Amino acid sequence: MSNACDAYATKLRIFSGSSHPDLAREIADYLGCPLCPSYTTRFSNDNLFVQLGESVRGKEVVIIQSFVPPVSDHLLELLMMIDAARSASAHTIHAVIPYFSYARSDKKDQPRISITARLIADLIATAGANHVMTMTLHSPQVHGFFSVPTDHLTSQPAFVNHFRTRDLSNTVIVAPDIGHAKRAARLARSLGVGVAAGDKERLSDEHVHISGIIGDISGKDVIVFDDEIATGGSVMGLIEVLRQQKARKITLACTHGVFSGQCITRFREMGDLIEEIVTTNTVPIPPEKRLPNMTVLSAAPIFGEAIRRNVTGQSVGSLFAYWPDKEGNA
Amino acid sequence: MSNACDAYATKLRIFSGSSHPDLAREIADYLGCPLCPSYTTRFSNDNLFVQLGESVRGKEVVIIQSFVPPVSDHLLELLMMIDAARSASAHTIHAVIPYFSYARSDKKDQPRISITARLIADLIATAGANHVMTMTLHSPQVHGFFSVPTDHLTSQPAFVNHFRTRDLSNTVIVAPDIGHAKRAARLARSLGVGVAAGDKERLSDEHVHISGIIGDISGKDVIVFDDEIATGGSVMGLIEVLRQQKARKITLACTHGVFSGQCITRFREMGDLIEEIVTTNTVPIPPEKRLPNMTVLSAAPIFGEAIRRNVTGQSVGSLFAYWPDKEGNA
Amino acid sequence: MSNACDAYATKLRIFSGSSHPDLAREIADYLGCPLCPSYTTRFSNDNLFVQLGESVRGKEVVIIQSFVPPVSDHLLELLMMIDAARSASAHTIHAVIPYFSYARSDKKDQPRISITARLIADLIATAGANHVMTMTLHSPQVHGFFSVPTDHLTSQPAFVNHFRTRDLSNTVIVAPDIGHAKRAARLARSLGVGVAAGDKERLSDEHVHISGIIGDISGKDVIVFDDEIATGGSVMGLIEVLRQQKARKITLACTHGVFSGQCITRFREMGDLIEEIVTTNTVPIPPEKRLPNMTVLSAAPIFGEAIRRNVTGQSVGSLFAYWPDKEGNA
Amino acid sequence: MSNACDAYATKLRIFSGSSHPDLAREIADYLGCPLCPSYTTRFSNDNLFVQLGESVRGKEVVIIQSFVPPVSDHLLELLMMIDAARSASAHTIHAVIPYFSYARSDKKDQPRISITARLIADLIATAGANHVMTMTLHSPQVHGFFSVPTDHLTSQPAFVNHFRTRDLSNTVIVAPDIGHAKRAARLARSLGVGVAAGDKERLSDEHVHISGIIGDISGKDVIVFDDEIATGGSVMGLIEVLRQQKARKITLACTHGVFSGQCITRFREMGDLIEEIVTTNTVPIPPEKRLPNMTVLSAAPIFGEAIRRNVTGQSVGSLFAYWPDKEGNA
Amino acid sequence: MSNACDAYATKLRIFSGSSHPDLAREIADYLGCPLCPSYTTRFSNDNLFVQLGESVRGKEVVIIQSFVPPVSDHLLELLMMIDAARSASAHTIHAVIPYFSYARSDKKDQPRISITARLIADLIATAGANHVMTMTLHSPQVHGFFSVPTDHLTSQPAFVNHFRTRDLSNTVIVAPDIGHAKRAARLARSLGVGVAAGDKERLSDEHVHISGIIGDISGKDVIVFDDEIATGGSVMGLIEVLRQQKARKITLACTHGVFSGQCITRFREMGDLIEEIVTTNTVPIPPEKRLPNMTVLSAAPIFGEAIRRNVTGQSVGSLFAYWPDKEGNA
Amino acid sequence: MSNACDAYATKLRIFSGSSHPDLAREIADYLGCPLCPSYTTRFSNDNLFVQLGESVRGKEVVIIQSFVPPVSDHLLELLMMIDAARSASAHTIHAVIPYFSYARSDKKDQPRISITARLIADLIATAGANHVMTMTLHSPQVHGFFSVPTDHLTSQPAFVNHFRTRDLSNTVIVAPDIGHAKRAARLARSLGVGVAAGDKERLSDEHVHISGIIGDISGKDVIVFDDEIATGGSVMGLIEVLRQQKARKITLACTHGVFSGQCITRFREMGDLIEEIVTTNTVPIPPEKRLPNMTVLSAAPIFGEAIRRNVTGQSVGSLFAYWPDKEGNA
Repeated sequence: MSNACDAYATKLRIFSGSSHPDLAREIADYLGCPLCPSYTTRFSNDNLFVQLGESVRGKEVVIIQSFVPPVSDHLLELLMMIDAARSASAHTIHAVIPYFSYARSDKKDQPRISITARLIADLIATAGANHVMTMTLHSPQVHGFFSVPTDHLTSQPAFVNHFRTRDLSNTVIVAPDIGHAKRAARLARSLGVGVAAGDKERLSDEHVHISGIIGDISGKDVIVFDDEIATGGSVMGLIEVLRQQKARKITLACTHGVFSGQCITRFREMGDLIEEIVTTNTVPIPPEKRLPNMTVLSAAPIFGEAIRRNVTGQSVGSLFAYWPDKEGNA
Repeated sequence: MSNACDAYATKLRIFSGSSHPDLAREIADYLGCPLCPSYTTRFSNDNLFVQLGESVRGKEVVIIQSFVPPVSDHLLELLMMIDAARSASAHTIHAVIPYFSYARSDKKDQPRISITARLIADLIATAGANHVMTMTLHSPQVHGFFSVPTDHLTSQPAFVNHFRTRDLSNTVIVAPDIGHAKRAARLARSLGVGVAAGDKERLSDEHVHISGIIGDISGKDVIVFDDEIATGGSVMGLIEVLRQQKARKITLACTHGVFSGQCITRFREMGDLIEEIVTTNTVPIPPEKRLPNMTVLSAAPIFGEAIRRNVTGQSVGSLFAYWPDKEGNA
Repeated sequence: MSNACDAYATKLRIFSGSSHPDLAREIADYLGCPLCPSYTTRFSNDNLFVQLGESVRGKEVVIIQSFVPPVSDHLLELLMMIDAARSASAHTIHAVIPYFSYARSDKKDQPRISITARLIADLIATAGANHVMTMTLHSPQVHGFFSVPTDHLTSQPAFVNHFRTRDLSNTVIVAPDIGHAKRAARLARSLGVGVAAGDKERLSDEHVHISGIIGDISGKDVIVFDDEIATGGSVMGLIEVLRQQKARKITLACTHGVFSGQCITRFREMGDLIEEIVTTNTVPIPPEKRLPNMTVLSAAPIFGEAIRRNVTGQSVGSLFAYWPDKEGNA
Repeated sequence: MSNACDAYATKLRIFSGSSHPDLAREIADYLGCPLCPSYTTRFSNDNLFVQLGESVRGKEVVIIQSFVPPVSDHLLELLMMIDAARSASAHTIHAVIPYFSYARSDKKDQPRISITARLIADLIATAGANHVMTMTLHSPQVHGFFSVPTDHLTSQPAFVNHFRTRDLSNTVIVAPDIGHAKRAARLARSLGVGVAAGDKERLSDEHVHISGIIGDISGKDVIVFDDEIATGGSVMGLIEVLRQQKARKITLACTHGVFSGQCITRFREMGDLIEEIVTTNTVPIPPEKRLPNMTVLSAAPIFGEAIRRNVTGQSVGSLFAYWPDKEGNA
Repeated sequence: MSNACDAYATKLRIFSGSSHPDLAREIADYLGCPLCPSYTTRFSNDNLFVQLGESVRGKEVVIIQSFVPPVSDHLLELLMMIDAARSASAHTIHAVIPYFSYARSDKKDQPRISITARLIADLIATAGANHVMTMTLHSPQVHGFFSVPTDHLTSQPAFVNHFRTRDLSNTVIVAPDIGHAKRAARLARSLGVGVAAGDKERLSDEHVHISGIIGDISGKDVIVFDDEIATGGSVMGLIEVLRQQKARKITLACTHGVFSGQCITRFREMGDLIEEIVTTNTVPIPPEKRLPNMTVLSAAPIFGEAIRRNVTGQSVGSLFAYWPDKEGNA
Repeated sequence: MSNACDAYATKLRIFSGSSHPDLAREIADYLGCPLCPSYTTRFSNDNLFVQLGESVRGKEVVIIQSFVPPVSDHLLELLMMIDAARSASAHTIHAVIPYFSYARSDKKDQPRISITARLIADLIATAGANHVMTMTLHSPQVHGFFSVPTDHLTSQPAFVNHFRTRDLSNTVIVAPDIGHAKRAARLARSLGVGVAAGDKERLSDEHVHISGIIGDISGKDVIVFDDEIATGGSVMGLIEVLRQQKARKITLACTHGVFSGQCITRFREMGDLIEEIVTTNTVPIPPEKRLPNMTVLSAAPIFGEAIRRNVTGQSVGSLFAYWPDKEGNA
């Protein structure tokens, strides 16, 4: 697509936080720009220290940071990089957050808790970001938590492209949770296949109970589709139920492959029971987590193109062939 | 429950906007306080004019306004009443919005639109509200749009109490839309019955297409449960499909009975096909809309008790026997 | 004047709210730019929905909306259009409000009311406008209510040009209200004629009592000059007194021709008693209100030129041959 | 009226800036409270230094400062006192500004000037004031410049009481400027007498030209009524014209007796030509300015009572027998 | 001193973050109040989750958190607890930060870095804290970074009390760094002894070079006094130089005993060379770090008393026998 | 260096406040740009009035004001000029404050005082400045008081250049106050000479007591180096002690030569005892203060170059051969 940082090269400065330098480099490559150096160290009292390695005065600054463990450090590092750029007279500061983990803390379902996704959005604005780019938030409403203009990008086209090459005649998309089934329904429509959903009850962070499948999946090739897989607990329970109900082949697909705790071990143990695991690189996936049946789609072209259009004042909306559905699920 | 505005009578001042004086009066009655007078008129250039009829200096001011048609006028009237109270040195201003209609504009599912629920939340804070009370927002995430402390109350207990007296042995709760099925699932669990959901595709504001029911409802007594019914278009389509799939009896239940356009006419025409229509009075329902098979539960005790606890510094969380579910649906 | 949207065409995007598309089109024509499409609809629950029809990323966005009935809807539509543009990463958002009706609510002349002009100014800033352009505010102090840079334009030159062609040797300008007589005094000075004023006492919105004329108008040709005529109540009373005191010919002139209620009917009934009614098109005047003795001056060139100078960084102050008087009346 | 600082003595802390300790003491006396000590000094580099002499933690702090020369020092001293109280954890900070001199800079009547009254109002809010009390602003719209709740008090009752004892059968109230004639018209109505106005054209700060009197004053006892007299330039010109037009006796009345430059000298030279000069003590009037024909009404009871009502949560609106007129002139 | 949470018990709610529950308990004990429960857990994607275990509606909430490792987690936990309290309608939120580690990042001594102490102060305000209490900030200017009222408490009295019992006739206080020698000079004056200072040049976070001692310490009993000891690198270098210059006995004293990395090991190895190590418990010091020659003074009474006075509206300034010196070093 | 205002001439507009037009002119000359006219007058009630004499719409506006006596007037004039530029739609407003006198009010060393440096920084942001440039703040932490991006420039290179030409073999730099000795230490290192410091105790603004010199200066050529000399009180006391301790030659050097009160008289009386007085022109030094042994270095090239780099988006950090030291002293 784009191959040179021509007209906007003079004003663009791309920095990477510590969380995911590979993705940052890929995005910079897409834009044909170098990644600017920055230095993050830790004082002996555990304070972080951050320095941007290149002048940003009057520049369009892009800072790329994914909220992967250690999340609190990566969040604070991002805030400090934004603050440093702001105080060094950057023209505009774009915070690119491929995986905004706190999007899951988006509601007050118990007394006296924090809607932390809103809190984090406010902190990012306080630090001085003028614009945010992120992908596939847990619920589309989280978009509204940001007070600065925000591009909520979708990984859907990448998945559509990936699955389109398969024989889908006997396929059904399954959402693990009936409460978040819209993205699955939308993917199903894009691929021209059916949809079903698990009736999930969350008992705790790691334990959920799938009491059944709403919809018919017997004898079907199933693609389980979710925004994020962490420990894989929900997915394991769902696979169990799918197998009881005679699903034929099972594929897992998710935008954010967190794969924490025993997740990869469990996936490895299931062996052939999982046809394929498809995810993107919004979260870094080290070699030791890359199972033979895993496909990692790159989110870099989507972020790169969105950045390019922002800096050159072109439509981001028209970037994608189609828009989020009526429910806003990206 | 409470029957006198004892200790806090000296500091509480309750005002009603033009939208729903009946509910305001009911809430004031619950609190044992008089409703303070206020005057709203319209200048010949269509400007609104608002005056509070009682001193609010140093007082806890409660302003009750539901976002029913004409919504823009009622919103502006609320903002003006808040501004008047603020500028007259009120101690605290509680905006009570039983039906926050714009909660439905909670995401950016098309390019270049406004996430208006967030915008309205910001306008309310700009006008000077210190606290918001509302009920059953379209999605629980909208809670996070408010920058001032907000109590998101639930009408669920009223519905549980209502349906508990029925024979529910053959009942299933049906959510019209698989994307917003959590509240229905939760009600189902409270009542110990099953759940199903429509696979709805919204074509436009008034036209939706229900492509099927996910889950089995054949021969069942169905309670269709939604947060809001406006024209009733979705519900009509759903009833059609339910009947094709041999549902036995059909009950409609919703928190916000907007019943706009041809809704009541359609309901009347369906006659016995609808066993019962159960809603609350967050939206005023005039006599001519009160069908013989309609039951209107009062939300006044819930708002009244929440106000009382706010003003006296008691827990609102413990007000309800149980809290929103893990998905935050109130 | 200007006839092509040359250098700045690439960055200017002009949108019209629903209130006054004709004026918006005239302004766009002046600038040689197309009017960008936008869509405003109403949901069945009376919520408004707004979408901008063209990408605004990095653009200078101009949104034109006059506060004419239904004022609350037009205000909210403007706020939503601003919010949509802001969230879609517009570079700058210019809110052009030819008739800012709430300028009349500019003081606290009763307890516990809202200084609504300030409230609206704050709401516009909250929604995200960076700059406001408006014309002939009821009092020049309202300019100070806006926290964003604001151009307070004047229609005075248009009136001077219009009346200059007349024989003014026997003319006196009359302000209906001695409390707002400065604009009339200034027009008088520009035209080299005398000034007088009514001693008006406002009894209610529609009813005022003119207890007399301060100054001598007997045998004179009178031009009654005011910022706004709504129902025309004040003006009718004034004409009555003018005739009692033997005024010769009577002309009415106002910037904002709201002409609400029975205004046009009354004017029509007075027939030849009113020599001419001169106004501008800050408020749309439909054909049925255009009386034979009415002249409508266009405000479009003034707004168009001010927009052009803003976008190209040229002085707006030097746009006009002379500035507001020492009292700031535009 | 009130004679002891009973119930609210424990929470009220009254401080005086350097501008007008006499008025502050009078107000404190009215409230039956001591004036708390504070120290203001100047460093050798001309920096001011301010310290409050008593703990304000959790208290209702009242800071009294009039904007008299040197105005910039008094403004900054006020801001520093507010900041000191805020940072020392005051509960509420009331800024009492008997004479808000910058109210005259309330509009933009030339290009590239500051609407300084709004700027000052914003600075006061930035420093941390929660509430403002002031008196007789140059135009009532300036009230709307304050973002914190503000009580705009009126000195009118004091003048009514003063003049009521006179024989007013042959009296007319004259406003020096037709553009600010409303306060005079209102006083006239209160006293049951007529009104007239000068047609003033301001040439510069010190020089104005009165081209005539609008209304008849021949043979009348005239009370010239204005909000503020500074050098007295306008008033001198007006008296000249009044005498030419055969006024009988001339009285001067104004809320804010600034009496700067040659003002007192001129008044003294006019001797018996001025029957009486009536003003209030919002501006300190030292003995050498107190002419034999001068009456100084005290504003202390009005401020004292307004403070008492604020702190005890009683209506300030009902404090006065009548409210500002429809034009909001206090 | 105080022994019961009498009058203010009903409105005080004290919570502890995860960083230092022992100190929180001691402070609560001082106040005679129970510590309220709160729950902090970590989701599988490393997101934190926080819940306050008791209703805070209308209450004075105190949240105690020291910025000790892991600092980023403790900071975020504090922000989330503040946000939870705010959103649950707390009346006032006091953030008590005994050790504000980021106070060291208080200036911009390299290009493109963040003045992180200011950033953190802003984040705390954004989350919703109304008041901050902290102790012995690295430089007294950091106090000015907070936009909310802040009590900057001093540990100095505790050290004075401790050393007063010694024979100080031959003692000199040594500041490790001539650039931060004021606190040492002040302690010296309080104890009636002399002062000296190291000429320190910081090479990196862990490596500093002491090029000499400014002042005479030969044959003296030396008390090295600093705000914080982390790895002890500076102190070690200083001791080396002190011994070369024939100091007699060496005592180390610091408010914040971070003692990170090899610090305790080094101190242990030095054995009798260090007479005593005196610090406070603003940072938790586990048993394994408590060397035989270490004395830990409690900061709890200082914080407890300051909280009590805040909640009861009493002077905090008078809490201490004397105030920070003219340089503001607490 | 630079000699023409080429590419950026079209967007740069430089204005001078009343405090220091000579420096402003020098800066404008450095940039090859004309100084734009502005008018500041004073009304008869002591109100200031400010008007910018040239259109600033869409321009980079630079306003140069030094906080010299009368400081309050100059501060308010700066705020009004900023406000005027903002309200006239300037693109960016750079406040250039060569001498920020209130930097000395940077801490709370007594109860109930204002940290006025922070207050002023907030006022400047409220007025509308987007960027601040200043030089050698009393303590480097004051940089963190500004919420807008701020360039804290250093005069150090000018002093290094000046002294480098001397024979420094027997020289030692002396800081008057051990608490602010870092700048002296850094200059010493740059010049390759030693450092010493006075042990100063401030008794009041004008009176300090130097109890001794920490370090050896006997027989040395001494350069006393401080950020600011006002009355010269501290310096006089220090010279006294230096002479007692047999210093050979004494030179005084300071960035900000305030030289207030009896300062110049005292210096003149000392005659040859002071070898040289070196300062910069951040504060205007009128001819009558220019002693024969005084050298005034120009700060104009430093400010000029920093402005140029800001407007053209070049690094300011690289402007100087070296950066502030680890203590941030500029």
